[in-house]
Amino acid sequence: MTEREMNAYAAVLVDTCLDFKAGGRLRIACEAVNRELALACARRAYELGARAVRVDWSDMRLARAQADLLREDWLDDKPLLTRRIFETYVEEGWSSLNILGEEDPSLMEGADPARLQRMGRARSLAVKNYHDAVISNRIAWCVAPSPTAAWGKAVFEGSKRPVPADPEAALWKELVPILRLDAPDPARAVREHMEALQERARRLNGLTLRAVRFRGPGTDLTVALAPESNWIGGGSVTPDGRNFYPNLPTEEVFASPDWRGTEGRAACTRPFDLYGQKVRGAWIEFKAGQLVDFGADENADALARWVETDPGARRLGEVALVDGSGPIFRSGLVFGNALIDENAACHVALGSAYEEAYRGIESVAEGERSKLGFNESMVHEDLMIGSDAVEVTGVDASGRELPLISKGRFAV
Amino acid sequence: MTEREMNAYAAVLVDTCLDFKAGGRLRIACEAVNRELALACARRAYELGARAVRVDWSDMRLARAQADLLREDWLDDKPLLTRRIFETYVEEGWSSLNILGEEDPSLMEGADPARLQRMGRARSLAVKNYHDAVISNRIAWCVAPSPTAAWGKAVFEGSKRPVPADPEAALWKELVPILRLDAPDPARAVREHMEALQERARRLNGLTLRAVRFRGPGTDLTVALAPESNWIGGGSVTPDGRNFYPNLPTEEVFASPDWRGTEGRAACTRPFDLYGQKVRGAWIEFKAGQLVDFGADENADALARWVETDPGARRLGEVALVDGSGPIFRSGLVFGNALIDENAACHVALGSAYEEAYRGIESVAEGERSKLGFNESMVHEDLMIGSDAVEVTGVDASGRELPLISKGRFAV
Repeated sequence: MTEREMNAYAAVLVDTCLDFKAGGRLRIACEAVNRELALACARRAYELGARAVRVDWSDMRLARAQADLLREDWLDDKPLLTRRIFETYVEEGWSSLNILGEEDPSLMEGADPARLQRMGRARSLAVKNYHDAVISNRIAWCVAPSPTAAWGKAVFEGSKRPVPADPEAALWKELVPILRLDAPDPARAVREHMEALQERARRLNGLTLRAVRFRGPGTDLTVALAPESNWIGGGSVTPDGRNFYPNLPTEEVFASPDWRGTEGRAACTRPFDLYGQKVRGAWIEFKAGQLVDFGADENADALARWVETDPGARRLGEVALVDGSGPIFRSGLVFGNALIDENAACHVALGSAYEEAYRGIESVAEGERSKLGFNESMVHEDLMIGSDAVEVTGVDASGRELPLISKGRFAV
Repeated sequence: MTEREMNAYAAVLVDTCLDFKAGGRLRIACEAVNRELALACARRAYELGARAVRVDWSDMRLARAQADLLREDWLDDKPLLTRRIFETYVEEGWSSLNILGEEDPSLMEGADPARLQRMGRARSLAVKNYHDAVISNRIAWCVAPSPTAAWGKAVFEGSKRPVPADPEAALWKELVPILRLDAPDPARAVREHMEALQERARRLNGLTLRAVRFRGPGTDLTVALAPESNWIGGGSVTPDGRNFYPNLPTEEVFASPDWRGTEGRAACTRPFDLYGQKVRGAWIEFKAGQLVDFGADENADALARWVETDPGARRLGEVALVDGSGPIFRSGLVFGNALIDENAACHVALGSAYEEAYRGIESVAEGERSKLGFNESMVHEDLMIGSDAVEVTGVDASGRELPLISKGRFAV
């Protein structure tokens, strides 16, 4: 990334994706390997009149030391400090930018999933307030990638292409069109793309679907929709009227389903990450809305532990449609990172549903929502189940089945 | 630093300097350039049964961006988040390890001292609770160095020696004997050294001095001591009985003076750092306890702004004795870092006094202590005024003057 490219990317993230305004506060979360981009975003926020910028540097080697060495006695500690920090972010309305790009994507491999689950659950409890604010768009947030050498190496090693001499630069070259930074005016290109996704969501809402059905190799899954389920795409709005884009890139339109009606089986078409461990070749099976069976070729243990976090971790909180026409799928690469891979393929999420994607749910008290079909959980994880070989249909209120995605292309 | 040396150093810091125990919490503050040592200390703390380890990574490039770009409107903001974080450290009794070693010692040069002072004052107000806990030993804390390439380069460039090919390794080689890590049992060597300093403090207390006088080139300064002034050296004790060493290295014995009796002038013999800016060639002049005049060859502005922080920043809070027999002075190097340079030379500090170095002061309410001679301030900065050419004498209750340090060697 040249300095010019980096500053342009930072401006898209801060100005366009977060709709950042003078007087706002910005939290940036990333690893030290993403420092240059984080600093470019911080400078951009200060230029716009930020009142405060804070970088939460995460260190996965420290996390691994904790995973390996923390005494059993403290595994379930809900850190007061973490709770206070995240409560303050919500209370003061900090915008949140999460820059993803790992120094070493394999660092957590081999750590004990049972210990990771207990520590992860304790952390989820400590930051519940913040998770709720994100899920309900009370704060503006954005998750975006930054290439690293080790990540680039892993992506190309897993592809049919040779590993380039400079894998970080090569990965960046792949990301530029995916992020629409190759457009003459990237901010405008991002906004126009978001409007196209919003238009797709409107068309889907016009169909008043009661279910979405996925059929393909190893997959026959029905996801029930409630009358309140609301297709969303391309952006969200904070209570104070900031239009923000929670993910860059994004190619999805998604809805919060009625979790109680999930039935059938699906094969995951891309790996996903739990506690830093890559779960590959996973499959999931539901009866009457509950995850009743599952497995994986690699790190099945991590999945088994993760679904124990709370009852909502075994139910669906999201169904998302992505076809094969987008730049991520067309790149032919598997990025090993949910932010990008979820935008290459249809997916469902285990865990918490999104409020804006389920009409009227904000007036129902927390703890009462799951009974109505809106899934509540402390966690949320996307599982990719789409590919060119997976046909997606919708079932409307009259029982009519109509194609949504066919042969890898949207039919609506 | 080899991995073995690093682990040995980490054990000295965590086990010996912090007297860290199972169930404790450890905060480590450092720049990313000190990451390997920080991780070694974190692992050591986990091995000892730490309940939590948190690294507060500071990024001076981010600090510089803030210094240059933050809007005038927010310069005096006392960040709520910072306040809550540091309040939690005190409330939960976190041990604090501050690893010093800059990625780029010149990064703050040229920043506006007036803006730095306002931001620094706001931060001091936000962390006042924590500063008070440190000053009164309610938490165990330690400040210790870690070599960096840029720091090493600056040290050797400022010396008569050639700049070595690997300045980080060369600086480490200088620090090893200073830290007493060259001893067969470094932890024991550190403890024995601390006991020798404690013995020196006992001897000084036996003299019941009423003043200390410094005379040398450009210096004739009298620092008054109160009957309550208490010489301290080599370590402190927390309320729960942990023996900790706040500085590694340390060569000083120090007391909290009666600030009201400071008279005369002193030339600073080593540079010191304010807001990341090196103040060189400074001098200070006192009348009736107040700093009435001062100057510097470089960054006089930073000093001028710093003393505006609060009234206590213009009064003395510490007088410390160090002779020329210690390993730091003997190295012949100026380290450009107060932690090390203050242990090469006698010094006085502008700003807050230490409770344990002034008997009975803890029973006087905050805000009332300055009237009695115990200086209260939000800040504390050491100014080195000693050298082989500076003679130090003590004046006892009967008015008798006796030599304390003569020709660079302790006489008591």
